[in-house]
Amino acid sequence: MPKLILVRHGQSQWNLENRFTGWWDVDLTPQGVAEATAAGALLREKGVLPSYAFTSLQTRAIKTLHLALEAAGRLWIPETKDWRLNERHYGGMTGLDKQETRDKHGDEQVLIWRRSFDVPPPVLEADSAYDLASDPRYAGIAIPNTESLKLTIERVLPYWEEAILPVLARGETVIIAAHGNSLRALVKHLSGISDADITDLEIPTGQPIIYDFDADMVPGARYYLKDA
Amino acid sequence: MPKLILVRHGQSQWNLENRFTGWWDVDLTPQGVAEATAAGALLREKGVLPSYAFTSLQTRAIKTLHLALEAAGRLWIPETKDWRLNERHYGGMTGLDKQETRDKHGDEQVLIWRRSFDVPPPVLEADSAYDLASDPRYAGIAIPNTESLKLTIERVLPYWEEAILPVLARGETVIIAAHGNSLRALVKHLSGISDADITDLEIPTGQPIIYDFDADMVPGARYYLKDA
Repeated sequence: MPKLILVRHGQSQWNLENRFTGWWDVDLTPQGVAEATAAGALLREKGVLPSYAFTSLQTRAIKTLHLALEAAGRLWIPETKDWRLNERHYGGMTGLDKQETRDKHGDEQVLIWRRSFDVPPPVLEADSAYDLASDPRYAGIAIPNTESLKLTIERVLPYWEEAILPVLARGETVIIAAHGNSLRALVKHLSGISDADITDLEIPTGQPIIYDFDADMVPGARYYLKDA
Repeated sequence: MPKLILVRHGQSQWNLENRFTGWWDVDLTPQGVAEATAAGALLREKGVLPSYAFTSLQTRAIKTLHLALEAAGRLWIPETKDWRLNERHYGGMTGLDKQETRDKHGDEQVLIWRRSFDVPPPVLEADSAYDLASDPRYAGIAIPNTESLKLTIERVLPYWEEAILPVLARGETVIIAAHGNSLRALVKHLSGISDADITDLEIPTGQPIIYDFDADMVPGARYYLKDA
């Protein structure tokens, strides 16, 4: 039967530095590398072996995927990378220190930007050091200049329907290595979580989340592989 | 214009131990990791940046690709893995120490198995410890039990024509991370090398080889990127 494995990338350099990251391409820390490897070791230990992989265009997710697949003995499976699995674009908050941002704009405003469902942060200005217009990985893509969770969902779900679901429906065990908010988008859809509740749902790093699907492609309750 | 980059994987554990490897899945040594990373650093330094990647189903080639792409800042490009880029299957010589094999069968016979164009080594017996029938990466594939270079070419070239050439013809810069004999097959084809001469052609590990194509998809003379 089809099985879906969701893995949020391990700790990145800017997770460690407590900065808003979004689409900026930041590497894993040594701890993030260890988390990714441990996720793959757990897959192997539990015998939950992916046969097809999806990830974003961002280094921290791609490396998490590769490290987990290597630890699981599955480095050879097909993999597809797509920008629609990228992290939510944090707009003008990209690169900012989270504490400095709270000091400047107030806790309440920052909480709205971080956790409201449909209020995007201020846009990233075109002359920002974090502008991605010249990044070749996004050539031909209408790069957003900010995204709410709602806007993130609006690009994740069509990709889920078009690209991922057909692979899963063939009976594959699909792994998606992605980001807090692109994975929130999927969990919201698959577990039927409300707009109000989804923003409080934490997706832990490096901790495989499983959905088992039945023959009608209805997902069961999600669970952590470590608890299986 | 289309550009092709060929990279043979860096040193593997069995290269180091002087054993015949073929389709057996052996990891890179620390030196092999360093060679792969250096190959990617050279791509970056020379500004030869791949936009599409192909590799085999074997760990040593896949890891070489990933390490090189990471060093080149190109981990995000699409990649396709296929068994037809695997190393030549060494048949019954798989796993054997090269010196012991020469002691047992004589230098002349081993040279024929290693370097004749169309004489395959003895077959791998089905009860061998190196039999791959139960390896899930080869499910649905008629796994060979031995291959000459000629037989290797007969599965590499159709894949080149069907899968790689159309990508290259779109104007992409294609990187192929593969093995001594699957790369020999391509170099023989692209550089018009005779059956007699190809078996003596050494493909160095971790050293990017370049072909530039013209608008009619005719390849120029091959060269090492380090000399460009």
